[in-house]
Amino acid sequence: MLFQVEMTVKLPTDMPAEQAAKIKATEKAYSQDLQHQGKWRHLWRVAGSYSNVSIFDVEDNAELQELVSNLPLFPYMEINVKPLCRHPSSVREDDT
Amino acid sequence: MLFQVEMTVKLPTDMPAEQAAKIKATEKAYSQDLQHQGKWRHLWRVAGSYSNVSIFDVEDNAELQELVSNLPLFPYMEINVKPLCRHPSSVREDDT
Amino acid sequence: MLFQVEMTVKLPTDMPAEQAAKIKATEKAYSQDLQHQGKWRHLWRVAGSYSNVSIFDVEDNAELQELVSNLPLFPYMEINVKPLCRHPSSVREDDT
Amino acid sequence: MLFQVEMTVKLPTDMPAEQAAKIKATEKAYSQDLQHQGKWRHLWRVAGSYSNVSIFDVEDNAELQELVSNLPLFPYMEINVKPLCRHPSSVREDDT
Amino acid sequence: MLFQVEMTVKLPTDMPAEQAAKIKATEKAYSQDLQHQGKWRHLWRVAGSYSNVSIFDVEDNAELQELVSNLPLFPYMEINVKPLCRHPSSVREDDT
Amino acid sequence: MLFQVEMTVKLPTDMPAEQAAKIKATEKAYSQDLQHQGKWRHLWRVAGSYSNVSIFDVEDNAELQELVSNLPLFPYMEINVKPLCRHPSSVREDDT
Amino acid sequence: MLFQVEMTVKLPTDMPAEQAAKIKATEKAYSQDLQHQGKWRHLWRVAGSYSNVSIFDVEDNAELQELVSNLPLFPYMEINVKPLCRHPSSVREDDT
Amino acid sequence: MLFQVEMTVKLPTDMPAEQAAKIKATEKAYSQDLQHQGKWRHLWRVAGSYSNVSIFDVEDNAELQELVSNLPLFPYMEINVKPLCRHPSSVREDDT
Amino acid sequence: MLFQVEMTVKLPTDMPAEQAAKIKATEKAYSQDLQHQGKWRHLWRVAGSYSNVSIFDVEDNAELQELVSNLPLFPYMEINVKPLCRHPSSVREDDT
Amino acid sequence: MLFQVEMTVKLPTDMPAEQAAKIKATEKAYSQDLQHQGKWRHLWRVAGSYSNVSIFDVEDNAELQELVSNLPLFPYMEINVKPLCRHPSSVREDDT
Repeated sequence: MLFQVEMTVKLPTDMPAEQAAKIKATEKAYSQDLQHQGKWRHLWRVAGSYSNVSIFDVEDNAELQELVSNLPLFPYMEINVKPLCRHPSSVREDDT
Repeated sequence: MLFQVEMTVKLPTDMPAEQAAKIKATEKAYSQDLQHQGKWRHLWRVAGSYSNVSIFDVEDNAELQELVSNLPLFPYMEINVKPLCRHPSSVREDDT
Repeated sequence: MLFQVEMTVKLPTDMPAEQAAKIKATEKAYSQDLQHQGKWRHLWRVAGSYSNVSIFDVEDNAELQELVSNLPLFPYMEINVKPLCRHPSSVREDDT
Repeated sequence: MLFQVEMTVKLPTDMPAEQAAKIKATEKAYSQDLQHQGKWRHLWRVAGSYSNVSIFDVEDNAELQELVSNLPLFPYMEINVKPLCRHPSSVREDDT
Repeated sequence: MLFQVEMTVKLPTDMPAEQAAKIKATEKAYSQDLQHQGKWRHLWRVAGSYSNVSIFDVEDNAELQELVSNLPLFPYMEINVKPLCRHPSSVREDDT
Repeated sequence: MLFQVEMTVKLPTDMPAEQAAKIKATEKAYSQDLQHQGKWRHLWRVAGSYSNVSIFDVEDNAELQELVSNLPLFPYMEINVKPLCRHPSSVREDDT
Repeated sequence: MLFQVEMTVKLPTDMPAEQAAKIKATEKAYSQDLQHQGKWRHLWRVAGSYSNVSIFDVEDNAELQELVSNLPLFPYMEINVKPLCRHPSSVREDDT
Repeated sequence: MLFQVEMTVKLPTDMPAEQAAKIKATEKAYSQDLQHQGKWRHLWRVAGSYSNVSIFDVEDNAELQELVSNLPLFPYMEINVKPLCRHPSSVREDDT
Repeated sequence: MLFQVEMTVKLPTDMPAEQAAKIKATEKAYSQDLQHQGKWRHLWRVAGSYSNVSIFDVEDNAELQELVSNLPLFPYMEINVKPLCRHPSSVREDDT
Repeated sequence: MLFQVEMTVKLPTDMPAEQAAKIKATEKAYSQDLQHQGKWRHLWRVAGSYSNVSIFDVEDNAELQELVSNLPLFPYMEINVKPLCRHPSSVREDDT
């Protein structure tokens, strides 16, 4: 089941560079692990911003909450979620 | 080059049913043609709405404008566009 | 799987009273059928408005879309959807 | 008498982890006590967020204020309140 | 129990003058009846607008919904509701 | 001459409790003094919030500014002002 | 006593040209009469818009409401009002 | 050439009182100098706020930028600018 | 003197095609005349929309108002204006 | 390929003056380098603000992201991006 998740990172401008680098590295590893599992199906940067557009593929709302709330950058992001499903004009049979 | 395009359809409530059906059929054919060409890469319905989330793959801004402004439903939609590119944490080499 | 759905009805002020009454009657029957099936788990009026707060219990996003987009008042409503799940502080084991 | 209360937690990102854990534990106990009393009738997590949707069942506006303003997380939350009542299309006689 | 109700009238600009006059006269009578009953405790015009600020005194949310949704101008108004109660700094013992 | 004043208190979450208590006590005394003088005609808590709805009765705009800008909590509040006058449907001769 | 009044005209696009011309002529005469009386102290066009910024000088809120609500364009305008008074840094003794 | 400039002061609540007093004194002197030169034509307080409405009379956009960006309170203000010109219904020949 | 002007066209969906074509042709001729005069310095389409971003070069605010308010599409557009001037980091001596 | 980029600088008010000066100098050099390369085609100050309106000319979305995200002031700015293309009413053959 798909969800569009838009995330905008707002790190405190006084966060020490080392701490920021560490959180970002953990975030990257966490994200890539979920991508390899197929749960984080797409991840795009919004050009000209510190935002991304993501497509999550999860079992249900509870799994979405588990994956998103455990993001290392979760406390520093504005997050917007939209549930998705197959569009009747799609040329594919499934929701890809 | 990718763009996220979010469209919300707002048909006038007094549009005759036959006219609405005709526009929607034209829109569907137009959309499916672009999907087959690979220019309209993804098309999802936002659940509980008359909106979609789409990913367009175009040569440049001018082609995006050409494709979107020729949508049969274009005069009846609110449209929001965001330029996308590969995210540094993506596990893929390209922007898929 | 639960979704909070908030609906605000905006009937055109020039809709004939008979037509409005007919749509509302169809909406009521449709809504009560879904309530009896357990898919529309809660339905509350927001006091001082022509809005409601609803809790839907569906299989997945696709079913939510099917149920909501078939509401007889769908073309006349502003609709806002939020995916819900069990809260870690809930005293119940399930999402009721 | 029912109220929908939507709460979004915004803890300062520099709050010490221990202090945050303590406030959350107190909040959980406070919440569960009100749930057991039947005053906090429903509590759901909004998936993909640090927000909840709650239904309170109180005697009057004054009791709502008392319960909400005493939430341990009250100084750290954005809170939105809507008064609810039975919907004329509800299949139940009361406001459940 | 008190509610602040803010109403902004948006009559269609093509409504026949006679029809508008009739609705306004019915609204005035309805409002004055509720004022005499003590249920519409205060009614002020917002200077420079077609809006009012009102204080309703009702039994519960359901009565608020009944009184407000039966306003003759209800289909033509934007309405905003806030539940009120006694303020701890008030010099009076009750909510006046 | 009446004004509706809506105030929302936003104390810094790191203000020492003692300092906060002192400001609130001064605010209360200031408010009650104006209420006794009849200048702060009504003061209600908005249920479920740290906001109030107030009705001020002043000589003119300048006095409103003097009274509001001297509130001890003034630097910590979002304040919204609306000029009021007698409504033509009011059952009273004056603006009460 | 001064008020800043910002008005944006939104004439229905299907209003017959003759009717629009008539309303505008009446509005102009009404406005100029109030300017000559000194009650409409300043009237500026916002460049690049169909909006104006005005300064009214009235006895009280009730007179503001009387003058504004009798504008011939009143039903076709969005209007925003702010009460003004002398600024403590003004080099003049009065509110000019 | 006229511009309406609306300024809202948002001093950090933890700014030392002495520093705040100093900035305000500098701001006042700066403002009064521009008023005496005729460049800051009007300055009004918005009653019930820490905002002002100002009318600047400058040579061109560049001078507006120079005057506004040099305000001592500039780093602490939200500022909104609107270009003004003579209104066709004005009773005066110039833009006063 | 430069102004950024952003225009979004909102033609009534029931405007006859012939009438729309006529207005657009007049608009195009009007726009190209101003471009040839150097007053409409830049004109870009916002990709994926019925909006444009324009740069006007005018004598003063009054000329901006004259040029913009005479646009044939003026009654059908949302227009946003920002005064521009040379940026201190620009590599050019003038405002190009 | 063109993008309009609007940037508003929001430096923390407690940033040491020396640090601010250093960032601004680096920003200026970075900006002028891109201007000399032709990638930052226009740069204007919005009069009365700490904002600019810029036109970028880049290969694709990825280059826009690279240029913008490396701005020394990037962590301190609100940035808004719009893709541009030639307007059908432009008198020029290209997108200048």
